[in-house]
This record gives sequence, C-alpha cells and structure tokens, in this order.
Amino acid sequence: MNEAQASHRDPAIVIHGGAGTILKAKMTDEMEAEIRATLAQSLRTGMAVLQDGGRAGDAVQQAINVMEDSPLFNAGKGAVFTHEGRNEQDATIMDGATGQAGGVAGVRRIARPIDLARLVMDKSPHVLLAGEGAELFAAEQGMELVDSDYFYTERRWKQLQQTIAVQEQFGKDAGDGLRLSEDDKCGTVGAVALDQSGALAAATSSGGMTNKRWGRIGDSAQIGAGTWADKRVAVSTTGHGEFFMRGVVAYDIAALMEYRSWPLAEAVAIVLDKLTQRGGTGGLIALDSDGNFALPFNTSGMYRGYLLPGGEPQVAIFEG
Amino acid sequence: MNEAQASHRDPAIVIHGGAGTILKAKMTDEMEAEIRATLAQSLRTGMAVLQDGGRAGDAVQQAINVMEDSPLFNAGKGAVFTHEGRNEQDATIMDGATGQAGGVAGVRRIARPIDLARLVMDKSPHVLLAGEGAELFAAEQGMELVDSDYFYTERRWKQLQQTIAVQEQFGKDAGDGLRLSEDDKCGTVGAVALDQSGALAAATSSGGMTNKRWGRIGDSAQIGAGTWADKRVAVSTTGHGEFFMRGVVAYDIAALMEYRSWPLAEAVAIVLDKLTQRGGTGGLIALDSDGNFALPFNTSGMYRGYLLPGGEPQVAIFEG
Repeated sequence: MNEAQASHRDPAIVIHGGAGTILKAKMTDEMEAEIRATLAQSLRTGMAVLQDGGRAGDAVQQAINVMEDSPLFNAGKGAVFTHEGRNEQDATIMDGATGQAGGVAGVRRIARPIDLARLVMDKSPHVLLAGEGAELFAAEQGMELVDSDYFYTERRWKQLQQTIAVQEQFGKDAGDGLRLSEDDKCGTVGAVALDQSGALAAATSSGGMTNKRWGRIGDSAQIGAGTWADKRVAVSTTGHGEFFMRGVVAYDIAALMEYRSWPLAEAVAIVLDKLTQRGGTGGLIALDSDGNFALPFNTSGMYRGYLLPGGEPQVAIFEG
Repeated sequence: MNEAQASHRDPAIVIHGGAGTILKAKMTDEMEAEIRATLAQSLRTGMAVLQDGGRAGDAVQQAINVMEDSPLFNAGKGAVFTHEGRNEQDATIMDGATGQAGGVAGVRRIARPIDLARLVMDKSPHVLLAGEGAELFAAEQGMELVDSDYFYTERRWKQLQQTIAVQEQFGKDAGDGLRLSEDDKCGTVGAVALDQSGALAAATSSGGMTNKRWGRIGDSAQIGAGTWADKRVAVSTTGHGEFFMRGVVAYDIAALMEYRSWPLAEAVAIVLDKLTQRGGTGGLIALDSDGNFALPFNTSGMYRGYLLPGGEPQVAIFEG
C-alpha cells in the first residue's frame, strides 16, 4: 500500500504516525490493535471534515489531534522525554491554497501543538514561534496551557531511562544516545489532505527524539523540511530529522514536480533514494492535487494509512 | 554591481549586511563611511582565509564575525531589541562540500552567533539548537557567554522605543509594529564563499526584527530558507523572513539550478521575482562553483560587497 490514486476531484486523506524500527516481535497484539484503531479514527475524523465540504487545513489538523490525544504516538500526550525529563514539541502546518504556514518549536505546555501552529498561521504575523514565547502567544489567544504531568506516560519515561542507561554504559560517544534506538528518534505524526475544492494542506506534530538535549529543534518545526503544501502537492515527513533538514526533503518533492514536471511517484522515489544514500532513515506521505499519493519509508515500519470517500480506512504498520 | 563572474578556480567571497529601506537622506556621511569600511574589512578577512588555501566555511564564518563585532549591523553586537528589550539571535552555516549544517535560534548571550552555529555543525549530532539549551551547549563547548549588556547600543534601543511608540499611537493593528519600519525587519548579515578547492559555503547571522515577540524564529535559523550551500551554489538571504521561510528561498535557487539546469543569474532572478509577487521584501547573495555571483534585492538598498583575488573590495549600499 505504498502508492495509489483517488478518483479525480474526490477528497482524500493520508496520515502517518511515525517511521522507525518497528518490529512485530516487540509489539503485543493488543498494542498493535490499539494503534490500528487510532489510525483509523484519525482517518475517519479527517475524512468527515472533507466530506462535509470542509477545508484541507481543518482536516489535517483534526486528524492529527486524534493522534496527539493518544499516548501511542510521539506527539501531544505520548511525546517522548528530553534528557532533562521534559517534553518539548515541534509542529507545523501549511495551507497549499494560500501558501500560508505556521509552526511552533520546543513548546512544553501545549496538549495539541498542531492547534498552536494553526494559530500562529492564522493569528500572528510570524511563521515560527518557540518555547515560552510561543506559550505566551498561546495564552494570549485563549489556549489552555497544561501542566507537564499531562505528558507523563510510563512507556516514554522507561524509554528515557533505558536510553540514558545505555549511554552511561557505552559512553557519550554512542552518539549521545542518538544511535541507540532508531525508534526513539522516529516518532512523529503527520497528515496530508485534498479537499473538494481541490486544495491541499499538510501538517506534522512531533515530540522529537528521546533524550534530546540543548533545545534541539527538529524538521517537524521547519516548513520545507518536515511539512510542505502548495497547489500541486502536500508532504509530511517522519524520521531522523537532521537528515530531513539538511535535505529540505518535503519541499524537494515539490521542486522536482514543479521544475522537472515529474509525477508524484517518481519525485517521491528519487527524494527517498537521496535520503537513503545520505544515511537518513525515515519516511513520508505525499498527496497531489489529482489525488495521487505515496507512503514510502526506508525503515522496518511506518504507522500509516489513507482513506478515500466511500471506502474503509486502510492502515498498515510494517513493510509490504 | 548586481552580477559578475570570478575567474574559474579563483576563490571568491560575496557578503551582505542586510537589505531594507536604506535611504541616503537618513544616513550621515560618517555612518556611510563606517559601514563601507566594515564591509571592506569583512571581505578582506574572508579573502585572506581563501588565499591562504583555507576552507570556504572558515572564510564565511570569519567574514561574518567582522560584521557581528560591529554595532552597525543587525547581528551580534548591533542586534535589534525584542519587544521585551532583549536580543534574540538566529544564525546558520552550511558546508556545500559535505552537506553538513548547523544553526542556533533565539540565543541571548552569544556575542558571535555564527561561531555557535559552526559548533553545532561540527560538534553536535543536531542541525538546530534553540534558546537556553543552545547556550548550555555553548558553555559545554567552552564558549564564553556574554552579559546582555554587551548588546546594548543606543541606536537599537531608540529604534525599539520608536517602534513601540508608533504602535501605541496606531494600535496593535499596525501589524504589531511590523509594518512600521522596513528597516527594522531587514537587518541580517551573510556571506558566501568559493575556496581554491572549488568548495562552497554559506552563512547567515541575524538579530531578527525590532520589537519581535513570542520567541519568533526567522529564516536566518533555517537551512533552506536563509542559508543554503551544496556543490553547485551557496546562498544567504536577508529581508522579511516570514516570506523567505514560506518560499524556502535559498534552496529554491539551488533547486532551479539543479532541476532545470538554469544558470545562477536566471535562477536568482526568477526566485526574487516570486518573492516580490508574494509581497516579500529583501535580497540575497548567491555564488556558484564557477564563480558566477549575484547580489539582487527588491528594497531601496542592501549593504553588500564582493572581493576577487588581486582586486579591491567592491562595496555598495544603494541601488544601481
């Protein structure tokens, strides 16, 4: 299910819940069923907006909210912990019809970071707000700030302790813990949608890397790297963010489609190939204005799915 | 002096000190002379590295240091004030030969932000670090943190007071003070260089917008928007950052050159034209691996210059 096409002019929604070393052996049947159910709920929520005649930007936002509210994904409620035991989240949204965009970086007290990214797009003169400043803007806009307790999940806390333990054993040269677990650095949620007017939108929300330090900002905060939408294509990426930032991966797909007139499938394949050649791991979702879409990744798995009008949510986790 | 070409294989350095509403009527002869002298010194410093056989990355960094140390440019010492009366700086550097990149966002205690961006590239597993976390990394790397007093300049303080006064008079709807002075949002310094090995690098350092709020991060912190370098071209931008972020402007030039095989001058012209059509103001410098370069802008002026081996520094401020 890595490529397909929706009927022309029909709406479509495609989502991901992160790419990484996702091994069936390490996942209980119960957890897999919960993940699949949440992905399906996210797709149905987004499609309901689209079938109601709503805008692509609203559809991707609401689809992402479902994953942000779940403890199963590395965004919102289930965000991973930083080295200091905090949760610092990045999110971006872009409206392909208007070219407007908004994002937040390193926010600690926002339950649904994509909602704040949306407010930055709609209500501020800026594209990207960070940290406490972004939270001040949220409060001024009437958004509730949550306590850091909201983000405590036993699973993520254990992940941090494990990562720190391995780092202490093998020393800082183990890439500051970054090479220790592909899974730790690959969780992110994203959505791309095509609405009945033919407009596209893309959005991405992420807790970043487990054990990240020094106020690290990832590709999910960056228009062009983690998120892109224009009149031709919408993209959301997930993976080892530094490679996506250095490759401007989301916009690179749009550039190949515009400047070389390549179809989506070809542009997506060459960009993922470039990423792989550079040693980057991850995946992405892309959807064009004709309803063509792709969900490729170079890791062992990516939580992903799509939904077309009148169909059932199609969700998958592992390869194939 | 908006286009030219260096002899093939000769090194070259091109710099900018910000684009905006720069009016001769508002500038004393003394200030103009000081700005020209600092630009020339920046160029000579970078060229000395290149003629010594040094790397493009070192040349752009040292050229930028000269402008960061001057109170005349909106970067380092001369950074503008935020709404809260602080200085929050963004900087990025990219090595075209290796594809590596580093950046910092919203740092308050770093005299030369480009040096910290360089450390992020060379010594961290990340691309972008923000705020206090970035300063912690700086301290761990042995970099001196300066007191905020270091950045106090009477000129920038007066600019903030004027902007706030106009905003109070005309209300918040004056774009939160953002539309009040083109000059306030257009200061940034940048450099691109071609070394004797044929490698390129680009770097950008900025205090951002006067009176900015909510932890705003600008294009100067973003690889692909404010800074880009690969094996073909190096770019640094300056201007109303939000437009450069939504347009992924620096990388867009590289994409046109790679995917359409366009020469630098043509790629630069079309990208500046797109920016202008969207209402964005600013300029950029671009230099390719054959020594072709351009320094276009759509504002009334841009502090800029270039230096080729054996020549004298060529500097300009106004149009023409």
